[in-house]
Amino acid sequence: MELLEGLATTRAIRRYLPDPVPEADLATILWHATRAPTGSNRQSYRFVVLRDTELGRRAKALLGDAFRSSWNDKRRQGGFDEGSGRDPSSPKARAAAAMQYYVDRLEQVPVIILPCLVRYREANPYEGASIYPTCQNLLLAARALGYGGVLTMWHQGVETELRSLLGIPASAAISATITLGVPQGHHGPVRRRPLVDVVADGHWESSASWAVEPGAGS
Amino acid sequence: MELLEGLATTRAIRRYLPDPVPEADLATILWHATRAPTGSNRQSYRFVVLRDTELGRRAKALLGDAFRSSWNDKRRQGGFDEGSGRDPSSPKARAAAAMQYYVDRLEQVPVIILPCLVRYREANPYEGASIYPTCQNLLLAARALGYGGVLTMWHQGVETELRSLLGIPASAAISATITLGVPQGHHGPVRRRPLVDVVADGHWESSASWAVEPGAGS
Repeated sequence: MELLEGLATTRAIRRYLPDPVPEADLATILWHATRAPTGSNRQSYRFVVLRDTELGRRAKALLGDAFRSSWNDKRRQGGFDEGSGRDPSSPKARAAAAMQYYVDRLEQVPVIILPCLVRYREANPYEGASIYPTCQNLLLAARALGYGGVLTMWHQGVETELRSLLGIPASAAISATITLGVPQGHHGPVRRRPLVDVVADGHWESSASWAVEPGAGS
Repeated sequence: MELLEGLATTRAIRRYLPDPVPEADLATILWHATRAPTGSNRQSYRFVVLRDTELGRRAKALLGDAFRSSWNDKRRQGGFDEGSGRDPSSPKARAAAAMQYYVDRLEQVPVIILPCLVRYREANPYEGASIYPTCQNLLLAARALGYGGVLTMWHQGVETELRSLLGIPASAAISATITLGVPQGHHGPVRRRPLVDVVADGHWESSASWAVEPGAGS
């Protein structure tokens, strides 16, 4: 797969086949993840890999409860069952069904990875520059090997219990929960805002007339 | 270029040829950047692109001062001129020389991009999940098109002046400064810790014997 194609078509995958992810593939995925940059090349992180072990199953059960609870809240607050959401064929209802399917089967996700940033300074809003590029490389490398995944923050509801179960020290931030497996569906184009809406040409208020979709002409 | 090869060999590029980056390439790079995921697909960001305009030159001059000042501090605190750093051929001295070259020519960098996260909640250590994956895609897409760059946080010394000059509102975090251009040198392998040091198998304290370099055998 070409690099640009990989960037353009790696989307969130939330439905997985039961197939396991072999250790060699996990190593390849994590190795490519860690090629991403970190501040001063500190690489101050640790990736906790949860699989089908006793401890892994207990952690997944904790996460499953947290994910279902977070999604329940979001489903209600986001009005997923109101308006167009009442029509099961609407985009809103289908998004809700996909998310419900995901959280209901969290315990069956083949691999869950917790990327943890080992803090060397006070927590701050910019520390993610040293962990989230690695997470993106992880998802892209997974894609290259035929897997798919998604990055979520829904572990936060059970973070205390998760730390205790897995021995994650207070000095490390659990920066994300990434679920991973062989996709049931397909990767493909993603939905995004028009580029011109998010590019500023030299000044915040200046729109960039050249910020058009590649291949859209000029 | 293959996706995995791109992930493995995109390294920080700090020396650029004077060649400009055409608008069509900038659009392609930013388009691929914005294929990265954001929380709830909000895409609540804006990319301020600084080029060779009057305002762009003023912003680059501000950034140049901040970068030189930050590097001076780091050079001193990091002991770059002590120990092995006294030998100009040592890795430490060469790293220092490369950084000095970079900050001394910041005003000549062809393109500087400020990825800004438009906050929809209080600043927090996890908000980077919605901007730094995009930054990593940006650097990878640049690589695919023959460019190189590096993500830094050294704008922070002049953030107030920069916001005022470029009209960046308080509601938006300046999440990074990315410099971009045609590399003088080459991309290639990056220096990283052994994978086994950063992977935990099921529990924080459990090392993963399978976390070996791809192709290293088992």
